[in-house]
Amino acid sequence: MKRIYFDNNATTPLDKEVKEAIIGALDLYGNPSSHHELGQEVRRKIEEARENVAKFINADKEEIIFTSGGSESNNIVLKSIICKTGACGINRNKGNGRIITSAVEHPSVIETCKALECGKIQTDYLPVDENGLASASSLRRLLKKPADIVSIMYANNETGVVMPIKEMAEAAHEQGALFHTDAVQAAGKIPIDVKDLGVDFLSISGHKMYAPKGIGILYIKKGVKICPLISGGHQETGMRAGTENTLGIIAIGKAALISMRDAASELPRIKLMRDRLEKNILERIPYSYVNGDREKRVPNTLNISFDMIEGESILYMLDHVGIEVSTGSACSSGSLEPSPVLQAMGLSVERMHSSIRISLGKENTDEEIDYASEELPKIITKLRNMSPFKK
Amino acid sequence: MKRIYFDNNATTPLDKEVKEAIIGALDLYGNPSSHHELGQEVRRKIEEARENVAKFINADKEEIIFTSGGSESNNIVLKSIICKTGACGINRNKGNGRIITSAVEHPSVIETCKALECGKIQTDYLPVDENGLASASSLRRLLKKPADIVSIMYANNETGVVMPIKEMAEAAHEQGALFHTDAVQAAGKIPIDVKDLGVDFLSISGHKMYAPKGIGILYIKKGVKICPLISGGHQETGMRAGTENTLGIIAIGKAALISMRDAASELPRIKLMRDRLEKNILERIPYSYVNGDREKRVPNTLNISFDMIEGESILYMLDHVGIEVSTGSACSSGSLEPSPVLQAMGLSVERMHSSIRISLGKENTDEEIDYASEELPKIITKLRNMSPFKK
Repeated sequence: MKRIYFDNNATTPLDKEVKEAIIGALDLYGNPSSHHELGQEVRRKIEEARENVAKFINADKEEIIFTSGGSESNNIVLKSIICKTGACGINRNKGNGRIITSAVEHPSVIETCKALECGKIQTDYLPVDENGLASASSLRRLLKKPADIVSIMYANNETGVVMPIKEMAEAAHEQGALFHTDAVQAAGKIPIDVKDLGVDFLSISGHKMYAPKGIGILYIKKGVKICPLISGGHQETGMRAGTENTLGIIAIGKAALISMRDAASELPRIKLMRDRLEKNILERIPYSYVNGDREKRVPNTLNISFDMIEGESILYMLDHVGIEVSTGSACSSGSLEPSPVLQAMGLSVERMHSSIRISLGKENTDEEIDYASEELPKIITKLRNMSPFKK
Repeated sequence: MKRIYFDNNATTPLDKEVKEAIIGALDLYGNPSSHHELGQEVRRKIEEARENVAKFINADKEEIIFTSGGSESNNIVLKSIICKTGACGINRNKGNGRIITSAVEHPSVIETCKALECGKIQTDYLPVDENGLASASSLRRLLKKPADIVSIMYANNETGVVMPIKEMAEAAHEQGALFHTDAVQAAGKIPIDVKDLGVDFLSISGHKMYAPKGIGILYIKKGVKICPLISGGHQETGMRAGTENTLGIIAIGKAALISMRDAASELPRIKLMRDRLEKNILERIPYSYVNGDREKRVPNTLNISFDMIEGESILYMLDHVGIEVSTGSACSSGSLEPSPVLQAMGLSVERMHSSIRISLGKENTDEEIDYASEELPKIITKLRNMSPFKK
């Protein structure tokens, strides 16, 4: 059975050219810290990737460090705040011990904040409205009490909603707080310009933008200091020890290049497909509701609820006809709790439990949209006919 | 020019079968946390790799977590000690705030201990003798004052010296301290049996055993709790968040299998080559001295000094004739300071500055040993003729 992959927010397939780049790099085995030619050859490839990644977000090369992924990048930023002694000279040394984040962040932000409670760090959660949006004005209210750092995601993994990062970074800076954005779900879906956004930190994950799992990026604005999460060797200007993940770095550098080259053609195409699928579903399936702001949204994501049925059942029946979607985020799967993101938006229990997330990618085609537009109504009807909640 | 790679302690080339495993996994892109078939297929591959890695060190599957490398593994263990509140239930909650390590550890241990000073953690350094060996008896003396954890490397990166881990783990446990060993330079060179060693934690890096850079292993003995360094999703039983580095995990699983299969034939062959090269050098080059214990040593490593010249000059002249070696460890290269390992052994400044490290691997051949045995004496003679220190 041909599989239709509509779960690109969980992870993306490798881009064909990225695969080629990986295969081409399998014999580049020198240690980039080695002085001999085999090592220096790898060093040059890593620095080339760093330049491409920097261009991708309009940063300077020196502002990019490579990490093992978005989770590590987020942890580096938030955990560097616990160091309040000033021994390492970081700028949190007169810290207030307070983080502000939002109620709809990824677990790598939320759980990190919870872990930090043990180090007497307090976290306050910015609410979102029924469309999943946080606002700079409510951030300003929370900032009346001083905070060290504000961490708000650029785009939400479940709804695709895009937050007003520029305004919120401004609000944070007005009160002397640093600003971090988890841009894992924005990268490759909307243009990212760190200079325009004015953020101090920005996290990206390779495997959400057609590069492999296990590689990520952290942007650290020039002049802002952090305390390394992984101490040791001098790699990544001392900010992240450990021999560089050469294959991953070369791959994400390539993925960044491809993303810049193809954005103008690919993103509108993906948006058209998403919008057509959304329109088809809303027209063909009664009692279906889009979750999250439909305007301020990345072009590939559609979070949608169907009254009277369970998202899990839809997922399994779609899997059966070869269509892969998700309920909630893959990272929190395995739990029966409704999505914390939809909860924070104040959705009813029924709306939350009946939601699925469709997230398109550049491998998807119009034919796949047609197929899904036909299969989904059949599945929903079938499930509703079996449903004890049938109206 | 054909290059002869004698720098396998810095990093190893990818094994041919590991490369094939990576290429074979490039299309396995599902997120292992996803419920659909594409995700579950990847989940099975990851668990298969975990079983192979567990067998490789005689651990149980549940005792293995995948990390981004040896540096991260070491950081996880040592930084989990700073959490003394007990909020997360880890067993350090009545911690003494004291680590014992050795003076010859990798920077990812030494620098982590230094970073922890800022959290009021005290570190004491176990000395080594002139052969680079630490002893259980000197550890017992240091343990008269209570410590939370003892961290001693299994094999040294620069000299290849193998520490008496089993005896030292015993000494630590007698005094109620946990025991960690950084086995990055032991893995694939000597058999590792965590049950026999009796350690609580053991770190391994993929790229020192013919797997790629950016993947590592941490063994955590059943019942021993840690505080995650990277918080977030439920991956790796909640001990290490972040979407799994699928390619790296599949690769290190394969590398572990190959290592177990080939150890009996490969390791003696490598030892014969190393011993022959060592004998040739000592016979043909006057004033040459092996650094580190020649018996208690991994089979691939030769650290050797040549009076009257600089290791750096030897490195560059060897590079020029196609032979890649290193001075000190690649991880601390870029510094003019003599190797801290050789310093801790009490070597003279001349011996330290004139040392090179030759580290063989399974791709090396007898012909390469012949070639190096001929080239090295010529280079040393040439350099000595130019040397201002010529005797």
